[in-house]
Amino acid sequence: MPQAVAGPEIERLIQLLARMPGLGPRSARRAALQLIKKRDTLLAPLGEAMRVAAERIVVCRECGNVDTCDPCTICRDSARDRSLLVVVEDVSDLWALERSGAVQARYHVLGGVLSALDGVRPEHLSIARLVERAADPAVTEVILALNATVDGQTTAHYVTEAMSHLGRRITRLAHGVPVGGELDYLDEGTLSAAIRSRTAF
Amino acid sequence: MPQAVAGPEIERLIQLLARMPGLGPRSARRAALQLIKKRDTLLAPLGEAMRVAAERIVVCRECGNVDTCDPCTICRDSARDRSLLVVVEDVSDLWALERSGAVQARYHVLGGVLSALDGVRPEHLSIARLVERAADPAVTEVILALNATVDGQTTAHYVTEAMSHLGRRITRLAHGVPVGGELDYLDEGTLSAAIRSRTAF
Repeated sequence: MPQAVAGPEIERLIQLLARMPGLGPRSARRAALQLIKKRDTLLAPLGEAMRVAAERIVVCRECGNVDTCDPCTICRDSARDRSLLVVVEDVSDLWALERSGAVQARYHVLGGVLSALDGVRPEHLSIARLVERAADPAVTEVILALNATVDGQTTAHYVTEAMSHLGRRITRLAHGVPVGGELDYLDEGTLSAAIRSRTAF
Repeated sequence: MPQAVAGPEIERLIQLLARMPGLGPRSARRAALQLIKKRDTLLAPLGEAMRVAAERIVVCRECGNVDTCDPCTICRDSARDRSLLVVVEDVSDLWALERSGAVQARYHVLGGVLSALDGVRPEHLSIARLVERAADPAVTEVILALNATVDGQTTAHYVTEAMSHLGRRITRLAHGVPVGGELDYLDEGTLSAAIRSRTAF
């Protein structure tokens, strides 16, 4: 443990910054100095934004999104297609889909994926709530937008099973070559999937 | 510009986080989500630490260090050798030297280096104050701990010139092979310097 080089307030700032994702002890120190140099334009406003966020952010009881209102902005949005429900693993996936603007629907955040290794069982995810929401007669299709990992696919199967009695159309994201991707760098699984799901040109 | 996916408070938090060094727009989004998930253990304390820091941090009038007291903790420390003055470019360099524990002396932060390209002239740096401090009869040696860059060395020459009338011993950091470094990966300049400054084994 190196000795403290600054007052306890600065040391505490560095220690907390070091716990942010993407910052280690060394980069936290650099970040702290940059913040201190931009005290009025960055440090103070960021501190205030964090305080406000910590105070106001709530998890949407409807879909599991984080927002400052409950139900969240997306669930309140009456312009969205209410017949579609997009199931995602995490809020970050919801944000990614929203940024793409690919779908104007409502979401359901599972809060993770099933994982025998990490001890994540169905009751740890909001699967029961999803089945409840999918039972709404307005919903006709459920899109499983889960990560294409083993755990993601296991979860997709489980969720499909849990909703099978509802008779909803259940779909998943297409597998294939990423837009802008080069075949040479792709794995065999992706290439096989892209060949199998080939479309008319 | 992608559409806002969350309330204005979250968007503002993301925008401010993106201006931190080491974080881009994408990693700021991820960082924001992580912070929100750790609201009570990280987001709220970090916001508070930033508020406190923004409120209390001052620049030491003596040496240019940042701290919550003026003169700073280092300048107040009576256990330090008052005959030595270590000149650094930036507070980050001061912190780096303090972490190494290599020297128990006082510092002087120049606040940058001379640079014709960036228009940094002597009056932009705290060189006049350095000469004032070096004139203190207690000071016998000034160590120029500046970066081994062209601008750093130009500044070192300028500072030496500015202090020449004081008759103080002026030294600079040794050049050589970094501890743990492999010769094969070192540039010719470093190797030449290491050979020239070789020491008895």
